[in-house]
Amino acid sequence: MSHEKVTSSIGYGRQLEAPFTQVLERARKALQGEGFGVLCEIDVREKMKEKLGVDFRNYIILGACNPPLAYQALQQDLNVGLLLPCNVVVYEETDCTVVAAIDAKKMLSVLDNPALASAAGLVNEKLHRAIDKL
Amino acid sequence: MSHEKVTSSIGYGRQLEAPFTQVLERARKALQGEGFGVLCEIDVREKMKEKLGVDFRNYIILGACNPPLAYQALQQDLNVGLLLPCNVVVYEETDCTVVAAIDAKKMLSVLDNPALASAAGLVNEKLHRAIDKL
Repeated sequence: MSHEKVTSSIGYGRQLEAPFTQVLERARKALQGEGFGVLCEIDVREKMKEKLGVDFRNYIILGACNPPLAYQALQQDLNVGLLLPCNVVVYEETDCTVVAAIDAKKMLSVLDNPALASAAGLVNEKLHRAIDKL
Repeated sequence: MSHEKVTSSIGYGRQLEAPFTQVLERARKALQGEGFGVLCEIDVREKMKEKLGVDFRNYIILGACNPPLAYQALQQDLNVGLLLPCNVVVYEETDCTVVAAIDAKKMLSVLDNPALASAAGLVNEKLHRAIDKL
């Protein structure tokens, strides 16, 4: 299985040579293993079909949240809720499945509150470990 | 009813002299009126109690999504899913209820893709109209 890394300006991800549903299931478990609850799951393909009648690739958004770190961040700045949960996306490409997690540090940096950096750094470490395990 | 504006570096919001549950109900309706579906709803107070056993203020995160604009943005950049849906938070303060929406333009600007600016601008217009109606 190839494990090519995919980075973008806002996330950390990988391309895996495994079927979409398999990667999705592994991602849910890996997140759980790092202490994240998946608070919501959005099936983009299903929503696009239902709302717009268009066909879209398999694409799921997992809303992951580590309760102690979210609590710590919310106590520093109530507006953190505008950036929660941390999204992990799983989507199909032609020959692979992509899984990517938001860069929590970059996202929280827009709040311009240095007290948030520590929680955001820990969230990123956990998200990267989860992705690396897949 | 007071309608004080609250702006932060990442959102657009207002303080309303109305009970939390009333503002929450109005927010759901106002978002719907602007073409947003609420794809997920996170009860932060409930989650904090359940996961950490701590008492937190009333705080709800509404995950709002305008399907045509989300579709347009995803076609420009698949990583947009890392930033979807657009959060609207409703939370209790001592003498008022705060409602605030994420600044979609600012969030999407981190993707450094000028093609996204138009959809993000439209999303912000709609979010601001929804908040202003409350």
